[in-house]
Amino acid sequence: MSGRWRIAWDMTGGDYAPEAPLEALKQVCGSEDFAELEFFLLGDEAFLRDALARQGLASKAERCRIVHAPEVIANDEEPVRALRRKPDASIVRGLELLAAGEADAFLSAGSTGAVMAGGLLKVGRIRGVERPGLAPVFPTADGRGVLVLDIGANVDAKPHHLLDYALLGQTYVRFILDVDRPRVGLLNVGVEEGKGNALAKEAYRLLRATPAVHFVGNVEARDVLFGVADVVVTDGFSGNVFLKAVEGTAQFALDALKEAFTSTFRAKLGALLALPAVKQVLRRFDYKEYGASPLLGLRRPVFKAHGSSDARAFVAALRTIRRFLAADLQERLVESLAAGKGETEEDGTGGEV
Amino acid sequence: MSGRWRIAWDMTGGDYAPEAPLEALKQVCGSEDFAELEFFLLGDEAFLRDALARQGLASKAERCRIVHAPEVIANDEEPVRALRRKPDASIVRGLELLAAGEADAFLSAGSTGAVMAGGLLKVGRIRGVERPGLAPVFPTADGRGVLVLDIGANVDAKPHHLLDYALLGQTYVRFILDVDRPRVGLLNVGVEEGKGNALAKEAYRLLRATPAVHFVGNVEARDVLFGVADVVVTDGFSGNVFLKAVEGTAQFALDALKEAFTSTFRAKLGALLALPAVKQVLRRFDYKEYGASPLLGLRRPVFKAHGSSDARAFVAALRTIRRFLAADLQERLVESLAAGKGETEEDGTGGEV
Repeated sequence: MSGRWRIAWDMTGGDYAPEAPLEALKQVCGSEDFAELEFFLLGDEAFLRDALARQGLASKAERCRIVHAPEVIANDEEPVRALRRKPDASIVRGLELLAAGEADAFLSAGSTGAVMAGGLLKVGRIRGVERPGLAPVFPTADGRGVLVLDIGANVDAKPHHLLDYALLGQTYVRFILDVDRPRVGLLNVGVEEGKGNALAKEAYRLLRATPAVHFVGNVEARDVLFGVADVVVTDGFSGNVFLKAVEGTAQFALDALKEAFTSTFRAKLGALLALPAVKQVLRRFDYKEYGASPLLGLRRPVFKAHGSSDARAFVAALRTIRRFLAADLQERLVESLAAGKGETEEDGTGGEV
Repeated sequence: MSGRWRIAWDMTGGDYAPEAPLEALKQVCGSEDFAELEFFLLGDEAFLRDALARQGLASKAERCRIVHAPEVIANDEEPVRALRRKPDASIVRGLELLAAGEADAFLSAGSTGAVMAGGLLKVGRIRGVERPGLAPVFPTADGRGVLVLDIGANVDAKPHHLLDYALLGQTYVRFILDVDRPRVGLLNVGVEEGKGNALAKEAYRLLRATPAVHFVGNVEARDVLFGVADVVVTDGFSGNVFLKAVEGTAQFALDALKEAFTSTFRAKLGALLALPAVKQVLRRFDYKEYGASPLLGLRRPVFKAHGSSDARAFVAALRTIRRFLAADLQERLVESLAAGKGETEEDGTGGEV
């Protein structure tokens, strides 16, 4: 292989697989931007071989190696049991390549639960991290974006987990979103100190007591999309509620707008005129611009793409992964975590791998 | 007084006080729909007397009794301390009238924290309820609306609190939203049984084990606005995140739409044509249609209106309160709670007043 980095890529996961990842693969293989990337393509071997031929990629067999992984873990399967029962699942085989050092990163739009559980079981955690966090970027009104973690990997989080998220999130955002000194906020029910449940109160104290964290205090869910922080830390339950409330409300708004634009002849005419501008602005809502979410805290880079990822989303995900690898970000995450936690007396020592 | 019900009304609370409540008062006093309501108006006596005269309501002095309550509790004051330091605050005096049985309900758009803390201290809880829950109605795509509780009164909720919310919410929705057999959902990170944090798992078990609850299982935040349940129960932390994520995303969408509609000449023209239809649909986002939120679990009815309430919101709130009183709903809440908890072996007995 001539490339610098090898990506283990689950071609079977997501609502639009395999068409969307195959289309993305074609784009990526035709672009100079991604010249340094090579791929392990995980899926059914015969199917993928045919598909590559149809895409005109048969000649790229060295850059695009097919790894036979015929089993698929569905979203509604219990993750840990599915991982055990399906040793030839694309997620299992991909994570094994990553853990063995054959691949430099893993990407899947498949079962979030299986990617998270498989990441823990197969890849393991950074020393000192008990619970990795899933960290999507949300759009903000000012266009900078905001990283929110955890959004579902760690639903019973402890305060020191949120400190890990602050340290990991800061470093990730610095290199991926190009923010010099990222501001860390704690998701809470009010901005004043002393607000919140027992977890939030204790996490506030811990974040405040850690000099390495650029902590700007509590932030309310209402303000997250308006850029009050670059990193927002929270437990996986509240983070998941936040994520899905944003998605649901955006869908509600889009549906309403569509209905309005088709309700009368006059509205239809108006929509025809306003649509280019509306579409332009609606792109801000689009998760696909931000690609996939890292599972921060694992020993090697695992990225989860949204289930509804199209080709553009996969390309964006690969751009993020390329950037992650070029910045040697895994090493930096480990270092910033060790340095940050060394600075505080309140280190909640986690389990290790 | 000739009316059937007396409402203690905080005329000083909210972003648009006193203009908005005064305008609402004028509308209500001029409408047959509200003929059965009389008011204790809480605020500065001299100011309110002048204001009533200006509104042409001076002759209604018997129906609109002014109660001198010159102090105001600000949103950023620590609620319990403020309640103690300001015995003449509108919230304090209003809740005292309610507790003493002089008033039949209390309405305020002022400090949420002070209304909640004051409700507990002055009015007290229904026997068996440890933590009352604040319960706004959210719009849904199908127009039915959904009651979500708690959204911030009880941030460290226990599973049996969520059972109380299910029983109270069901009864409230039955009479206020006119739903025959309201479906209760548990806010969670996935729909499958066994999902969630420790609280959600235990609450699921308790709700499932209580025959009086029409439990439809877990609901995800993404689906709440699409009418998957009529009542959604959750702890006050997650509920608050949900509320504010919905508000923030709706604001984000509105801002984006406004920007799109003014970005080009063509878009402006289109907006001019489509605007009536868009406005019609946007009303669905409008909390004001649903008036104020009850603090369910208190011994007597306390309603909190949104801080941004305008006159229309106050009128809607009074319509809800009228309906609450006409249905003898406080009595029904107490009964349904006692009956529902009597049916299960897993009764988490709460504190009493």
